[in-house]
Amino acid sequence: MSDRSAPARHPLGVVDGLDRDGDTLREECGVFGIFGHPDASAVVALGLHALQHRGQEAAGIVSFDGEIFHSERRPGLVGDSFSDRSTIERLKGRSAIGHVRYSTTGGTILRNVQPLFAELAGGGLAVAHNGNLTNALSIRRDLVRDGAITQSTSDTEVILHLAARSRSPRIIERFIDALRQIEGAYAIVALTNKKLIGARDPMGIRPLVLGELDGRYILASETCALDIIGAKFVRDIENGEIVVISEEGIESIRFAEARPMRPCIFEYIYFARPDSVVNGKSVYGVRKNIGIELAREAAAPADVVVPVPDSGVPAALGFAQETGLPFEMGIIRNHYVGRTFIQPTQSVRELGVRMKHSANRAAIEGKRIILVDDSLVRGTTSVKIVRMMREAGAREVHFRIASPPITYPDFYGIDTPEREKLLAATHDLEGMRQYIGADSLAFLSIDGLYRAMGEERRNDASPQYTDHCFTGDYPTGLTDLAIAGPKRLAMLAEAD
Amino acid sequence: MSDRSAPARHPLGVVDGLDRDGDTLREECGVFGIFGHPDASAVVALGLHALQHRGQEAAGIVSFDGEIFHSERRPGLVGDSFSDRSTIERLKGRSAIGHVRYSTTGGTILRNVQPLFAELAGGGLAVAHNGNLTNALSIRRDLVRDGAITQSTSDTEVILHLAARSRSPRIIERFIDALRQIEGAYAIVALTNKKLIGARDPMGIRPLVLGELDGRYILASETCALDIIGAKFVRDIENGEIVVISEEGIESIRFAEARPMRPCIFEYIYFARPDSVVNGKSVYGVRKNIGIELAREAAAPADVVVPVPDSGVPAALGFAQETGLPFEMGIIRNHYVGRTFIQPTQSVRELGVRMKHSANRAAIEGKRIILVDDSLVRGTTSVKIVRMMREAGAREVHFRIASPPITYPDFYGIDTPEREKLLAATHDLEGMRQYIGADSLAFLSIDGLYRAMGEERRNDASPQYTDHCFTGDYPTGLTDLAIAGPKRLAMLAEAD
Amino acid sequence: MSDRSAPARHPLGVVDGLDRDGDTLREECGVFGIFGHPDASAVVALGLHALQHRGQEAAGIVSFDGEIFHSERRPGLVGDSFSDRSTIERLKGRSAIGHVRYSTTGGTILRNVQPLFAELAGGGLAVAHNGNLTNALSIRRDLVRDGAITQSTSDTEVILHLAARSRSPRIIERFIDALRQIEGAYAIVALTNKKLIGARDPMGIRPLVLGELDGRYILASETCALDIIGAKFVRDIENGEIVVISEEGIESIRFAEARPMRPCIFEYIYFARPDSVVNGKSVYGVRKNIGIELAREAAAPADVVVPVPDSGVPAALGFAQETGLPFEMGIIRNHYVGRTFIQPTQSVRELGVRMKHSANRAAIEGKRIILVDDSLVRGTTSVKIVRMMREAGAREVHFRIASPPITYPDFYGIDTPEREKLLAATHDLEGMRQYIGADSLAFLSIDGLYRAMGEERRNDASPQYTDHCFTGDYPTGLTDLAIAGPKRLAMLAEAD
Amino acid sequence: MSDRSAPARHPLGVVDGLDRDGDTLREECGVFGIFGHPDASAVVALGLHALQHRGQEAAGIVSFDGEIFHSERRPGLVGDSFSDRSTIERLKGRSAIGHVRYSTTGGTILRNVQPLFAELAGGGLAVAHNGNLTNALSIRRDLVRDGAITQSTSDTEVILHLAARSRSPRIIERFIDALRQIEGAYAIVALTNKKLIGARDPMGIRPLVLGELDGRYILASETCALDIIGAKFVRDIENGEIVVISEEGIESIRFAEARPMRPCIFEYIYFARPDSVVNGKSVYGVRKNIGIELAREAAAPADVVVPVPDSGVPAALGFAQETGLPFEMGIIRNHYVGRTFIQPTQSVRELGVRMKHSANRAAIEGKRIILVDDSLVRGTTSVKIVRMMREAGAREVHFRIASPPITYPDFYGIDTPEREKLLAATHDLEGMRQYIGADSLAFLSIDGLYRAMGEERRNDASPQYTDHCFTGDYPTGLTDLAIAGPKRLAMLAEAD
Repeated sequence: MSDRSAPARHPLGVVDGLDRDGDTLREECGVFGIFGHPDASAVVALGLHALQHRGQEAAGIVSFDGEIFHSERRPGLVGDSFSDRSTIERLKGRSAIGHVRYSTTGGTILRNVQPLFAELAGGGLAVAHNGNLTNALSIRRDLVRDGAITQSTSDTEVILHLAARSRSPRIIERFIDALRQIEGAYAIVALTNKKLIGARDPMGIRPLVLGELDGRYILASETCALDIIGAKFVRDIENGEIVVISEEGIESIRFAEARPMRPCIFEYIYFARPDSVVNGKSVYGVRKNIGIELAREAAAPADVVVPVPDSGVPAALGFAQETGLPFEMGIIRNHYVGRTFIQPTQSVRELGVRMKHSANRAAIEGKRIILVDDSLVRGTTSVKIVRMMREAGAREVHFRIASPPITYPDFYGIDTPEREKLLAATHDLEGMRQYIGADSLAFLSIDGLYRAMGEERRNDASPQYTDHCFTGDYPTGLTDLAIAGPKRLAMLAEAD
Repeated sequence: MSDRSAPARHPLGVVDGLDRDGDTLREECGVFGIFGHPDASAVVALGLHALQHRGQEAAGIVSFDGEIFHSERRPGLVGDSFSDRSTIERLKGRSAIGHVRYSTTGGTILRNVQPLFAELAGGGLAVAHNGNLTNALSIRRDLVRDGAITQSTSDTEVILHLAARSRSPRIIERFIDALRQIEGAYAIVALTNKKLIGARDPMGIRPLVLGELDGRYILASETCALDIIGAKFVRDIENGEIVVISEEGIESIRFAEARPMRPCIFEYIYFARPDSVVNGKSVYGVRKNIGIELAREAAAPADVVVPVPDSGVPAALGFAQETGLPFEMGIIRNHYVGRTFIQPTQSVRELGVRMKHSANRAAIEGKRIILVDDSLVRGTTSVKIVRMMREAGAREVHFRIASPPITYPDFYGIDTPEREKLLAATHDLEGMRQYIGADSLAFLSIDGLYRAMGEERRNDASPQYTDHCFTGDYPTGLTDLAIAGPKRLAMLAEAD
Repeated sequence: MSDRSAPARHPLGVVDGLDRDGDTLREECGVFGIFGHPDASAVVALGLHALQHRGQEAAGIVSFDGEIFHSERRPGLVGDSFSDRSTIERLKGRSAIGHVRYSTTGGTILRNVQPLFAELAGGGLAVAHNGNLTNALSIRRDLVRDGAITQSTSDTEVILHLAARSRSPRIIERFIDALRQIEGAYAIVALTNKKLIGARDPMGIRPLVLGELDGRYILASETCALDIIGAKFVRDIENGEIVVISEEGIESIRFAEARPMRPCIFEYIYFARPDSVVNGKSVYGVRKNIGIELAREAAAPADVVVPVPDSGVPAALGFAQETGLPFEMGIIRNHYVGRTFIQPTQSVRELGVRMKHSANRAAIEGKRIILVDDSLVRGTTSVKIVRMMREAGAREVHFRIASPPITYPDFYGIDTPEREKLLAATHDLEGMRQYIGADSLAFLSIDGLYRAMGEERRNDASPQYTDHCFTGDYPTGLTDLAIAGPKRLAMLAEAD
Repeated sequence: MSDRSAPARHPLGVVDGLDRDGDTLREECGVFGIFGHPDASAVVALGLHALQHRGQEAAGIVSFDGEIFHSERRPGLVGDSFSDRSTIERLKGRSAIGHVRYSTTGGTILRNVQPLFAELAGGGLAVAHNGNLTNALSIRRDLVRDGAITQSTSDTEVILHLAARSRSPRIIERFIDALRQIEGAYAIVALTNKKLIGARDPMGIRPLVLGELDGRYILASETCALDIIGAKFVRDIENGEIVVISEEGIESIRFAEARPMRPCIFEYIYFARPDSVVNGKSVYGVRKNIGIELAREAAAPADVVVPVPDSGVPAALGFAQETGLPFEMGIIRNHYVGRTFIQPTQSVRELGVRMKHSANRAAIEGKRIILVDDSLVRGTTSVKIVRMMREAGAREVHFRIASPPITYPDFYGIDTPEREKLLAATHDLEGMRQYIGADSLAFLSIDGLYRAMGEERRNDASPQYTDHCFTGDYPTGLTDLAIAGPKRLAMLAEAD
């Protein structure tokens, strides 16, 4: 069922994937919450702004003013929808949670914009969720059979329904009842009329941190959302942990049995902002290390190291530092990319327009270049960039990828293309090199990646990170896979 | 909980009540549905346009294309939201239902815009509803206790939940199960993946007619929605009747025991369009009869009869015809009323600006006038109109109201002011005359009203019409009244 | 040169011509000005709102705050663009003028929206103009040859250029210099840093009245714009007169030699609001008289008199009164007409959708009806209305037109179709009757029209009114006709 | 006179100055034109997109289709206004010119959006202009005295008026007549019904290049606008040169006596895109050279070199390369900056929110850093950045500015603050260091800057570049300065 209650607005800011024609991975969401602050919704808006890289499609905030819940959910960027006084003033109250979501290729479905809210028997419950459940489909089927009416296609609503149907009297217990029935990856912030709640899945796949601002607690997907408002980082929420923040302070509950954390390694490679510290490790530092490891594994005789901006910059810096080659901004990024331009006729299309990246001829002409990008997904962008380098006079182009080959889809909230569109799933290394048109091509090895993380190597018996996109080693059950098949499951996985 | 998913647009057309500052009654909704037509959603849009007088706040259409349901719900007028090709083309399918709703004083709550939709175990169900339930609050309370999550504040959602929870296997049976649990007034059109359904409450309070266009069945609130597309009127849906339209034809089911119909008399006085035929009676004809009866009961020595346009015109014509006095357009209506103008300073406010109505001095100067309006609610507009007539030179102003005094609130979907704001509930006739400033004031009697309807008089033992606003005689149980009290109940009654 | 600086918005209110597919005449403009009022721009906005029937395409206000001029010009209705506080607050100052313009079929050209403004050597001059010049093309050609740059296609800019190039030192003299060079019809309000100026062409073709509100002078196209704010009517501006309003009071200057006034008779038949008094005559009264004269000239055996609403109502009342036949609202007008609906397929188009008018079957079924409309232009609407009457059961349809046949185009600011599209210019009476499908057809005679105006007959030697559309007797020179030919001239005549 | 014909939209992309609260220089405009291309307006839109860094306030395109000129001018980004098919299709024709303008702090004045157009006696002339005239005020005064009507406040209109008043018969001669009367800096592209014209002022202050795409000539402010569409760079337009492009080919005319070119040095330091080649020199190369020279002049003992992104990156790379210190992205830029967030209360304001830049703690904690920025204007941003570095743990902050101190205002189209707000105009070096809070502060010397440009030193007798902001050495007459005074002149200088 399609629903265009409000016309979808194109996200007008710079969406990293726009110019890449789907040759990208997309993070699903960012969450943020604060308890007991006089300007709660203004602080949430700022926090969401810092998490904007995790989702540009839509944003929402729910606040509680001691009596009623207020909700505003809008398509587009946080800065466009939540930066004016009147919106913030409508979001009354001293506690609030917020959510940003990524851009789908189809229209924005506003019903799915979070936080979602339900009036339960014990009071209101608002929930914002980053991640994806792998048994949502099965649960939803049971719920509908039992007479439930679902309004969205989102996993988050499943959590609300489970909490609504719990027989526990207290909302927090209902919420735990719900978490115990779900499977998959999630970092959740929730708001009741008394409490701010944070929860992270039993493997700790998706990130969630606890911060503090003038004695008030904050929950956020990344530390960069604490930095923007000058809040202090307190600690990561642990895997399988619920924290409950109220006027009485903070309480920690373990709803899942203890096991080693196994966070998603893609946050370091691709999603998290470089100035964030995720699970105790600087993202920028990891990316530089990746460049160093990559240089050790796959150096090439060259004159300069050139990053694909912006995400390739730290690895390229590490690569240049390790090899001693000069680092040059050989590709310039246009920051004013908005909607895709129409290219009305064949003659214009043949111009091979460079909307987002352009070659900096002065830095590359006549040179042998090492080109460093963070990942290789479909490869279509890489083809264009290599060609652009050659047209600008590069003598040789050695492509280096700051991660291992992606060969498996994700079901935990990362929007990966179907497997047959993953270049590394269908081509061997030489095939990929030819497709891209580079003089040489190399990926970081899995163990190289683990070394960049500070490990000696991947512990195959008990892997330190969730890395199924490279290894096929999924850390949770995949219940819905039996119902839906991988393609449909991946599609469903887009929802949150 | 407030939610402004999409910014509310002011309805830009002429809303009869806008200039009256709340001194008005407002109809709640209009519904329309068609089965098996190649341009189903275009036909629904036209039908809703003809029903626009029943609601200007928002409109929605749900269609079914044989596989999936499509939904578009928008604030504002039908002609603004559903007149472009792309919207209609998204609403694919050969069956569709639609809904218009009235303008609330607060912001538009898009979640409440109908038709509502739910995916039930047996398939999808879309529902559009005109009326109001008098036990929705009680049912909703039970539903929430039982773990249901409600997304809107509308009665219509209660019907969906009841259908979802029914244990009957077929959707039509689930729908009947739901109807049997609700109390109040309703005309419903619903759409499943196989059927178009129409239902009218056991008293037949709200109107619903069956029409036919080239062999395809139509359901609509009023016959004017058939006329706009040249469809034929077939018959009124009966009280307590469900009609089920499918590829197999039309089937009639009685879900409530037989009793005499008792339709809402206000449709004739105020809401329905004059060119509609409601329950077999021409609205225009009834209004002219009302003017005739009013002239018989309350003539006055005068020179001209002047209607308050547009709704007072037919009764004034009847009055003029019966008395032999000339009918004159002594008040001119400005058709370009849009948003209310700000009146920035006291000096401008004191101008007593005539935004919507203006006096036609040439027709009234020096004359004794009979002023005919359809009803008297708060009286604030009447005060202004009488003053305007005197300033334009009227020698005497005899105010005649084409209905009995309104002394009781409605709980069936008409947005009446609270009882203490109804002028007739707090003033006697002379007090009202003084308040309004007229030289004389008279209302139609209850029996006069029934005579205008073609009855000899009101049958107090078994009244022929629902007339509680004049008599306090409510035709159904008022279960929620015990829970909520009359003020809260009236407020809740605004929902659909 | 096309320019869409701002996207044109469809006027969302009821535009009389919209549903008539061009089968209509359109007035060009309305003007309003006030001097020395603390809320000048708010008062102008209200005045323009009352003049909205004279133009729905766009509106503009220029104010002067003692130091600088402020200007806001917007597409759409006054109530949409000038009813909010912030717009009015930007239009600072105690003097202001405003303008409404009609809707063109093409896009709105915002450059043409008035008032226009120029900084002359002696100070600023803002001008708003209703009418059309018949030598603008010739003057414009000379101006461009002499190095002038013209920004709009409007006649009004010609006046500004002539004033700018005048060698007179004072702005008022420059303005008179300009008026002495132009030919055609105009009612102008202008604002300088010291004065509010009103001027009416030497024949007084277009209307302009002087009013007074609390001692401050007002200029307006019609008296209804005085009534809305409770201002007093002082007098009509005379033909060939300039009035200059300043702190010193009001001064009258005759810039053209004295001759009898010859106002446009179409204002009474079609354009002016019925509650206006134009050149001392009530528009409503004239229209009723027209109905009486029409009844005397062309009665028919019938059962009821039915107006085409709203413009045909007064003449139909006169007709009914004179014949003693009952007056019935046999056609109902839908007040919510907005944009034209798309009619996506042939099958929908064949429904013959009634968007704006619908038949009131109860009033006409089985009856012989006299149908009264104000004018007959192309006839396409009349065809539909006659057919609608017959489909609703009318036994006979006698069409009566409340004006003589229109056989000549206008060059003074009325948007008439090209001559070959005027039904009366290409068909004789019987041909028109057959085209329309009526049982009989009659127009008012020219002398009947003059009798309705209170004259004995038309004085052919010195006609009392400008009536060229019926007679071909143009009251001014038509200089541009030699340059441009009638078709092009008519097209240019659309500009203001 | 204020005019808000269309409501100003906030530029939604990343405006480099937005977060700097006016602590920035702003380029005035970019221009682009193409002759004889089947998709002329689509190509212009792409060219303007590449020049977006030169102006984000508004954009406009004028095309000529062989018969008429088409114009579209819009507030906001090129990608928002000119990327849809319908807009481009309205801009018919094989020749077109376009313009982007910078963001003013006040509302967008759409009348000023270029290209401007005038119908001259010999045909139409459209003009787009980058730069500022220093005698526009004087000329405008004379024009108004002589009866000209000016519609905008822009210098460009002065050029149109001068061309309109020229007595030369041919448009190209009229255009040259106009150029000979103006004084100041300009790069102009103009379009007639036969020709595309480019002109550069007698000193060549503002840049303009000639390119070629499939045999069609292009004019553009920078080479990056050629690169986006794969066009070839042909040559720079010379100072005092007009090029006239027509079906007959290209013709060069010198309208000013020969003298050495003296281009604006700020294009290299600040405005031009790093991948552009301006007057034969790579902007990126110059900026790296500046970093090298700065390192030679003002090295400091430190651990890392950190750029203020993005504009400080090339100089920081040069600095790091010259000193051998590691280059680190110690500041991360948020690419989703849109509107400025409201900061509703004092408590939120005190958070010292980092909207646009954030510290990358991992790269700077415990380190002595060299911070490299391109320029120092008011210094308010520098204060915040230094503080942010210290809060993130920097042990020492040595601030290095990649240009000499700015001590004089610009009158040639760069929007500089008033002199008293230029930090370097009111503080000595130590005063600036203390204000900023850095451990040390150094600027590049003037001769260092010239060395970076490839010169031995500044030739004070005949300076190679326009560098008055550093030296007070204005290369042209400043006629209006006598009329207006420096503050008013600077304000007027904002216009184009």
